[in-house]
Parts: sequence; structure tokens; C-alpha cells
Amino acid sequence: MDMTSSITPVRIGKTRITDPLFGAYVDMVAEKVIPYQWEALNDRIPGVEKGYCIENFRVAAGLQPGHHQGAIFQDTDLYKWLEAVAFCIEYGAGEKFVPIADEVIALMEKAQEPDGYLNTYFTIECPEKKWTNLTEGHELYGCGHLIEAAVAYYNATGKDKLLNIACRFADLVDRTFGAEDGKCHGYPGHQEIELALVKLYKVTGEKRYLNLANYFIRQRGTKPNYLLEEMKGRKGRNVFPEFAEYDDLYAQTHEKPVEQTTAVGHAVRAVYMYTAMADLARELDDQEMLRACQTLYDNITTRRMYITGGIGSSGKLERFTTDYDLPNDRMYCESCASVGLMMFSQRMGNFLEDARFYDTVERALCNTVLGGISKDADRYFYVNPLEVWPDNCLPSTSMSHVKPVRQGWFSCACCPPNIARTLASLGQYIYAQSDDSVYVNMFISSKLDTQVGDKTLGLDMQADYMNGGDVTIRVTAPENAGLTLKVRIPWYLENPMVNGEKAVTHRGYVTVPVNCDTQVVISGSVKAKFVAANRNVRADVGKVALMKGPYVYCLEQVDNGCNLASLFVSPEASISEAAPEESLPGNLPTLLVSGERLVETIATHDLYGNPAFRMERVTLKAIPYPLWCNREPGEMMVWLHARV
Amino acid sequence: MDMTSSITPVRIGKTRITDPLFGAYVDMVAEKVIPYQWEALNDRIPGVEKGYCIENFRVAAGLQPGHHQGAIFQDTDLYKWLEAVAFCIEYGAGEKFVPIADEVIALMEKAQEPDGYLNTYFTIECPEKKWTNLTEGHELYGCGHLIEAAVAYYNATGKDKLLNIACRFADLVDRTFGAEDGKCHGYPGHQEIELALVKLYKVTGEKRYLNLANYFIRQRGTKPNYLLEEMKGRKGRNVFPEFAEYDDLYAQTHEKPVEQTTAVGHAVRAVYMYTAMADLARELDDQEMLRACQTLYDNITTRRMYITGGIGSSGKLERFTTDYDLPNDRMYCESCASVGLMMFSQRMGNFLEDARFYDTVERALCNTVLGGISKDADRYFYVNPLEVWPDNCLPSTSMSHVKPVRQGWFSCACCPPNIARTLASLGQYIYAQSDDSVYVNMFISSKLDTQVGDKTLGLDMQADYMNGGDVTIRVTAPENAGLTLKVRIPWYLENPMVNGEKAVTHRGYVTVPVNCDTQVVISGSVKAKFVAANRNVRADVGKVALMKGPYVYCLEQVDNGCNLASLFVSPEASISEAAPEESLPGNLPTLLVSGERLVETIATHDLYGNPAFRMERVTLKAIPYPLWCNREPGEMMVWLHARV
Repeated sequence: MDMTSSITPVRIGKTRITDPLFGAYVDMVAEKVIPYQWEALNDRIPGVEKGYCIENFRVAAGLQPGHHQGAIFQDTDLYKWLEAVAFCIEYGAGEKFVPIADEVIALMEKAQEPDGYLNTYFTIECPEKKWTNLTEGHELYGCGHLIEAAVAYYNATGKDKLLNIACRFADLVDRTFGAEDGKCHGYPGHQEIELALVKLYKVTGEKRYLNLANYFIRQRGTKPNYLLEEMKGRKGRNVFPEFAEYDDLYAQTHEKPVEQTTAVGHAVRAVYMYTAMADLARELDDQEMLRACQTLYDNITTRRMYITGGIGSSGKLERFTTDYDLPNDRMYCESCASVGLMMFSQRMGNFLEDARFYDTVERALCNTVLGGISKDADRYFYVNPLEVWPDNCLPSTSMSHVKPVRQGWFSCACCPPNIARTLASLGQYIYAQSDDSVYVNMFISSKLDTQVGDKTLGLDMQADYMNGGDVTIRVTAPENAGLTLKVRIPWYLENPMVNGEKAVTHRGYVTVPVNCDTQVVISGSVKAKFVAANRNVRADVGKVALMKGPYVYCLEQVDNGCNLASLFVSPEASISEAAPEESLPGNLPTLLVSGERLVETIATHDLYGNPAFRMERVTLKAIPYPLWCNREPGEMMVWLHARV
Repeated sequence: MDMTSSITPVRIGKTRITDPLFGAYVDMVAEKVIPYQWEALNDRIPGVEKGYCIENFRVAAGLQPGHHQGAIFQDTDLYKWLEAVAFCIEYGAGEKFVPIADEVIALMEKAQEPDGYLNTYFTIECPEKKWTNLTEGHELYGCGHLIEAAVAYYNATGKDKLLNIACRFADLVDRTFGAEDGKCHGYPGHQEIELALVKLYKVTGEKRYLNLANYFIRQRGTKPNYLLEEMKGRKGRNVFPEFAEYDDLYAQTHEKPVEQTTAVGHAVRAVYMYTAMADLARELDDQEMLRACQTLYDNITTRRMYITGGIGSSGKLERFTTDYDLPNDRMYCESCASVGLMMFSQRMGNFLEDARFYDTVERALCNTVLGGISKDADRYFYVNPLEVWPDNCLPSTSMSHVKPVRQGWFSCACCPPNIARTLASLGQYIYAQSDDSVYVNMFISSKLDTQVGDKTLGLDMQADYMNGGDVTIRVTAPENAGLTLKVRIPWYLENPMVNGEKAVTHRGYVTVPVNCDTQVVISGSVKAKFVAANRNVRADVGKVALMKGPYVYCLEQVDNGCNLASLFVSPEASISEAAPEESLPGNLPTLLVSGERLVETIATHDLYGNPAFRMERVTLKAIPYPLWCNREPGEMMVWLHARV
């Protein structure tokens, strides 16, 4: 296997998303999401529970008296916001945020302690308890998001004040943690800093940061278990009530990460860690680490992932469960977990120059991640079910975590900024580049203008495959520059042709030399079709889902009436495509299929009785899953009963 | 409607259960369950978490130093045990327990405070906090179980020491609570004392107890909400972490009970309250209360009850959810809740002289309650799912409350003694009597020898209907005594005949005059058949269950292989009956039905793919649901995919 891949994502600033669907969302990040979230960080949104994020920094900076309020990890709301701001600036849509960002960065600098420590909770409330509760304290998690924001802001603006803040904190962490005698042999309760440290290494060239990330991964899972020992010392006095059920699987400390073979525990923590592991495997040429990544990736994508790219089958503690356990209504499928799955898959694809990893990037992006945000970019899902019956999403029940409609903001606001930063940096998932090639990983209409080595390459992709058209990529490059375009031919493209010839792929990519003005037309058929699940997925036995291209489709009550569970289709039924639903963004077609409604099961109004099944023919209407709950709230369903 | 019914359950001591299935369980209560539970109360069972029940009484009695340990309501383990002991004594199988019971009753007397107060937790730990935490403190709940035990022990032995202890505590409660100025206007957090006070009234004739029960029911749900106000005063310092999610629906305080129309909140609390309401409706001739009972009963049995008689659709907080929400794997369906449903239904049936309420008594008894105990009477289910996939019953997940095998004992040991007391007093559910009639409510082989007015009636029922035979009831009574037998003709008996003539029923009962030696033969056909659920039960759409008589049948992995979800049947398939499974108790037949196994859904080993459904013919084997998990542990399923 070629381990010397030099593929990197393109710089966001070099991209412009023109796709009617994604472009609209990306534009809204700068227009609506960032300003809204800034107001939320400052507790200025009426009716939204206060988070005290900026206020905590002001208290920690000594600018006002008071206590820390809000979540122990509330600082990260600001960091994620800053990262999204940086992406918007780099994308060319965020210049107006620079003064606000600079001001808040100055505030952060004031809140930072002289040794580099930065965490408003511990600084304000209990400085003596720093690093004593790694399980729940989230200090290293916060440092990670600080680093990510700093790297992004430096990349976007060239300004280094935030980067220096991050480096000072990272240096403190490096002085505090490590295998050496006298250092703390702990590691993060919530992984995140590991992948951030790799980014910091790349932007600063400082190898200590890479080694620190590697230490955290390699130390994890060693015996005695640092986090369990730490909890024993606290004797159950937990910050978070749910940690009463803490176990070593939850935080992936049950085994050394390189020895782990199944995706377990809290889904977000898991995929953040795997992302760092993929980074480390590449940077350190660590074959053992790579094998673990491949095994974990395979376990997720062949056993533990929803058709929507959602992960985390347990609603309780937001965690993985067991192979093929994919219940459709009560799971978690957190938006953040799918963002993490995108990151992990992107790292693997770029490292191994294998387009097939982008199947997962695309699946998660086009379904769970995009579905996490409303069409007006003002409401969000944390939990992304594949089946919703609003009546039973009751508080204080097994279903209380499932919200039948997107929510305005959350006191634990991880998902909204995570979706925002992903959309704001979408170009990095669409395109990648190496010394002599540009990689087109997803067919999302967009433009790119980048340097490949010392050559400038311009690209304009018009992707009409969802509406019966082709994907046309116009490339401009210097004459005889020896550049190639590598285009991922996705699994759903039938009879793929490139410029009229049968596409021949290597690891999922077709290679096209480009010269001056080159037009690459990818054609083929992208049929709407039924998909079934592996027979071991008990929740989906005897059911089919509708897909077209990377998009999962779903039925909504507004189109199909209530009790969607009573609808049946034949897997052989023909599926027709209709015009896009007018009130929904983008131009993805609507699907129509002839099916049946079970209008009678028993002859009485009793609860149970003699079977008396009676069907009525109906036409079912399906819309893309990411667009559900943008009209009237109601039932929604992805997997339909099949008449097998 | 005739509100002057004088129907009462028969005295347990007058019955003898001879049924091969139930008789075996009833006998084991005295032989195994009671001795085992006594060891558990004394913390003498190796490997079982200590409960400190007896030890707490010793500390409270001043016989040994120490603190209270175990649950705040641990005392009730002893009370429920005593009640079961009393039933065994009355049944004629528990004489050997009398000395032990008398000794522990003497200990209880020592632990009782001079004013009558008896609760080891508050006496030992915080006497100043008595009655300050009605929401969680369970003092009134404990008093209720004390009263029930005392009434049963008095009935069984004629000894009044325990009854006097109970009366002293009840008198204190009566002096403490009430509508009068100067009294506490609260009511129980966990209902139970209400139904117990009615029992105490009946055995003592003291109307104060009846009025106190009525006060508790009538005060509940008034505004301001006593329990919510009380919690506000504690500012979230809860004894039980789950009370962080406490709401007024949970404890049925959201409305006045007489105005409640849907069964909500904690299922056990709900049915205990409804039982008391039915008692009060009858004793006080309260039409408003009766209407509420009827409405709540209808809501449960036509909208919120599993086919097994289980109730409580939410695994979290063990509560009701909403109409038709009956998920099969993640629910609670606590054994205790089905015991409570039996009590409520029995009260309604006897009050209204309507045999149809016994459909529910029987459904709950024959399925969930009997299924809650292992064939050797040493292991128990709290949670009674209709579908189990052991792999996904993982700790710290949405499914952690579901145990794939019965457990030995529980630190919160409510279900085992509740099942024990129900089985030990089974005769009261089979038979009832009025001034001139004996009612046969369930076909469970047994004998009865009772006084009806001043006449002696003997009865011997041989019920072979589950094995193709008749139900033969031989009655002996004085000549021309004017007595009648009223026999419930259950819904599953097709073409019912009584002594060769078509059965004519009134409110579900057929009336047969008895004279000297009368033989009543009830014949008809009891076919194994498929049952479907109301189409609004989303979890069961397109599925059927197997039933024969009152017994729900289920498939187990040991008979049918793994992945039971992949099995399909046609609702028209013929069902054949086979010999009882040898290793299982009783002689209920096994059912065989021709079905299909979905052996392929997609052509690959991927997670998702093009549908490629392939079926193989198989013979499915079903056993009675109450007997599941008595052989090899594994998957279990009640509702099967139907090829509709």
C-alpha cells in the first residue's frame, strides 16, 4: 500500500459553493448562523436559556465580578463559533466578523492565566482542582477546540494572537501531561485535543504537539485505567449525573486504541479519536495505528451505521451498542457524531487515496449533517431519528431525547456550531489535492481556484446528476502542466462514463489528464431505487428505504397522512420522479411510488383481535431526508414495510 | 346499573389449586419462595447485594447500633413477605412460618415509635424530617404495605398484634393528614396506602380509615400541587436521581383522579390508585369515582396495554406514554404493574358483576405475572419485554433496564414478593361469591369449600380446555338451597356450551342453579390462532401474535434459531398443536406453524444494498409466553412479521 500519499484538503478560501442546495446553506452560515450564535453567546436571545459563555470569559478576565455559570465546557461554544467565523472569513464571506472576533480574542487573552491555562470554569471556581477531573472536566476537550479555532483563524487571517494563546495552552498541556516521570499520566475524558494537536503541529511545524497527540492516544487504555482510578478517588461525586453510569467502554478506555476492533462508547468521542488516529498513522507512518483505523472504520460502516450516516444506536449516553443494532426511533445519531464520521472518513480517504471512504463522507453530509439544520438555518436537531411519531416523544420517557421538531438553541450547544463549521468549510470535503492532482470527491456544484505545486488550476463543476443531467467539470490549467483530475465515481452512478467512455477507476477514482481548457463530463444514470439492509439488522427486516444518489428519502405525514407505519411498498414497484417540492430549498426531485395502506388489521376498535387485513392502494410521496420537518411537523419514516 | 353488588373474593383458605401449571407455582411459594426471601431479608444469600431489611428494624428497635442501610423503602420488603406468608398460612401451607413471623412482628413492635410511627429510615436517620418528603419518602407507601400484611395475617391467624401495629400507624396517619385545619394537606408520593386503608376499614369496621383513603384520593390533583410545592422547597435535592425528571403526570397529581381520563405516569402507582378508587366507588357509592374508574380501565385496555397484560410503555421511569404506543423491546411492563392491573380489574369485575373485567385479570396473570417468575421460582423479571435480543441489552444504554434472563434478587425487590403474594392468594382471583352465588372467573383447576350465606358449597373444577377437553365443575350444596353458580365464559371459547346447551351469558356470566350434586360441563373450542393489533399500534403493524386461550405464545431462539425478526408467517397458515415441552412446567401444548425465514435481504455482506429478498420455508415452534427463558437463554419474540 502506498503510504506516501500527499493528498490534502484544498484551502477553503479557494472554493465557492454554487450548488442550489448546499450553496444556500453555506451562504446562510455567514448571513444568519454566525450572527445568531454571537447573540446566543452573549445571552441576548429572548426566550433562549442563557449559556453565560462570553460573561464567563469576562469574569475570568477580571472585567466583572461573579461566578461561572452554564456548562463546565461552555467555553467551547465560543471556540467553535470562532472556528466557523474563521472559515467564513477564509471563504470570503466573513470580513465583517473580523472586528468582533479580534475583540473576543483579546478578551480570551485576558482570561488566560500567565502559565497558559485557559478554562473559565476552573479559573473562576476552583483553580486548585485543575486536571483533577479529566473524566468530566473537559479541560483538554476545551483546549482542543481552542486550538482548532486558532489554526483556522490563523489560516484565514494570518493573525497570530489566537494561535499564540492556543500554543501557550498547548505548551502547558505538554508540560503537564506525558509518559515522563513527574508528569500526569492521564489523558482526555472527552477526546478532541488529539486531532487538534495534529493541526497545530501542521501549522507551526512544532513536533512536540504531534508527539503529545500520540502520547494521549497511546496512553489511553493502559492499565491501571487512569479515568476509572480518578473516579474512584472522587467516590461518585460526579459533575454530570449521567456519569453515575460511566464505564470504560463509554470513553473508549477499555483497551488501547490501537487494539480496539469495534466502535464502542460515546459516538462523538469515538470518531474524534479515530480521526486523530488516522492523522497520527499518516504523520508517524504508523502501520499498527492505520490497521486499527481501518478495522474501526469497517466495523462502523458495515455493522453500526445508519443508512443516513448516523451513528450512536443508544439514546442513553449517546453511544454505540452492538453490531447490527440499529433501531430507527430511539437512537441518538447525534449531528456532531456524523460530523466526526465525515472527518474520520475524509482523513482515511486522503491518506489512502481511496475514494470509497468518501462514500461515508457523502452519506453523512447529505443526510444526517444537512438534516441537522433547518432550511432557514435557525433550528437544529441534536438527535436524528429515521422514524418519528411525535405523540410518543414525551418528556421523562425513553423517547424524551428525540425531538419531533428542530430546536432553536441548546444549553449544551455542540451541534449547531459543529454543523456551521462543517458547512462553512464544505470545500475541504469536496476537493483535495496532491502535488500534481486535484481530487473531486463529491458532485456538489462549486468552483475551485487553487495552486497545485507551482501551477494554478481553475475548476468549475456543474453537477446536475440528481436531475437527470451530467456532472460537467471545466478545468483551466497551464498548457502541458502535467496535472490530472481524479474524480470519484460514486457507487450510485450506474454505467458511469467519462467524456463518453466507460469510466475505469482505481480505488474509486477515475484519472483524467487536464491541459489548458479541459472539459470533463461524467455521465451515467442515477436512479431512484429501493435499498434493503443486511438481514442481521433486526429493525429493518422486511423493510426497504428509498434512495436516489447519496440522498436517503423519507415519507412525511404532511404528504402521506398519519400512521406512516401502516404503509407498504413492493420492492419491485416503479419509482417516478416529480418536481422538487417548492417550499424546500435546492432542486432535489420528489419521489412517487405506488404502495398500499393497511387500513384495517382487525374488524373492531379493540386493541387486539382476529386478523382482518385490508389494504388500499395509495401513492406515496417521498422527499429527501435532509429536508424533513421543514413544512408541517408530523410523523416521518425512512424504512417502509415491504411486501416481500 | 345495579350498584348494590355484594360480590367479594372468596377466602384463600377455602381454595386449593390443583392445576398442573399454577398449582406447581403456588406450591413453590411456600416451599421455596418464602424461605428464600426470608434469607434475603436477613442478608444471608451469598452473592446477592445486601438489603439490610431486618437489620434496619433491629437498629430502629434499639437492639443494635448502626445506621439505616439500603433503600429508603426497604421496610416494605418485609411487609410484602409477611403478606405472602399470611396467604400461605391461610392457604394451609405456611404453618411452619408462624413462629418466624411472630418473632419478626415482635421486632416490628419494638421498632414502632410510641405515637405509632413506623419507618426505619426516618426513625434511625432523620426523625425530624418525617412527612417532609412525601414525594420520595415512601412513608405512606410503607404504611400501606404494613396494613396489607397486617390484614392478611389477621385473616390467616386471628392474631391481632400486627393488626394493632398497623392500626396505631394508621391512626397516626389519620391524625396527621386530612382536610381539617392544622393537618397536613399532603398525600402519598407513591400510592398504595389508599387501597390498604379500605382493607383495614373492612376488617376493623372503622370508618375513619375509609374516609382517610377517600381524603387521599380526593386531595390528590388539587391546586396548588402539594408534591410540586414540596419539591420546590427542597430545590432539587432529591433522594432518587430519577426524580430530577419528576413531573406531575408521573405521580398522577396533574388532575384530580376523578377527572383523569387517560392512564399516565408510573404504571404501578397508577393501577394501585385505580384499585383504591374502585374500592371507594363501591364503598361510598360514588358514581363520579366509578365513572373515572371505567374510563381509565377502558383507556388502558383499549389503548395502552400489551397483549400480555403488561403496562408501562416507557422503560425510563416505568411509565405510561400515549395511546397505542406499545413498543415491544424497550418498554417496562413491570411485573408489579400487571399485579396492580389484576387487582384493579378484579375490583371492577366484582363491583359491577361483570365477567369481562376478568379478561384482563386473566391476561395479566397468565402472561406477564406468571412470566415474571422462573419455573423453579428462584429468578424473576422486573421488566417483561415481548421481544428480546440479548446482544443489545447492554448496560448504560437505552436497553439497560431490559434483562435477557430472570435475575436472582434485586436491591429494589418489589416484584418477587408481589408475584409471590399474588400466587399465594390465587384463589381470590379464581372465585368470588355473593349472598347466593359462587362466581367462577377463571378456568384454573382447583377446589373450593366455602360458606355462601349459611350454606356450605363445595366445588371441584377440572379445567382441560387447553388440551382439548372440557371444564368440568362438580358442585355439592344443600338440597334446594337456592344457590347458583355463575361461570365466566371467556372470549376465547368458541361455541360455548354449558351442559350441552348453548351458553347464554349476562355480563359475561352464565348462570347455573346448583342443587345437591351438580355437574356443570363447559365445553367449546379453544383454538390456537393468530391475533392482530389495532392498526394504530405502530409497533405491531403487519405483525401477528399467536394465542391459545388466555395464553400468548412466543418464539424462542432455542427452538427457532437466532434472528427471530427474520421469520414470517401467513395469518392464514394452519397452526398445529404438539405435546407440551417436556422441560417446562404444566401441560400447555406447544404450537407449530409453517412459516418462512428471510435468509437473504441483499446480495452482499454490506450493511445496505439492492433488495434481493429470498425466503426459505421453516416450521416455527412457539411456547407459552409465561414459560419463556426457562431453557437456554436467547432471543424471544411475540409479534411475528405477517405476510399480509
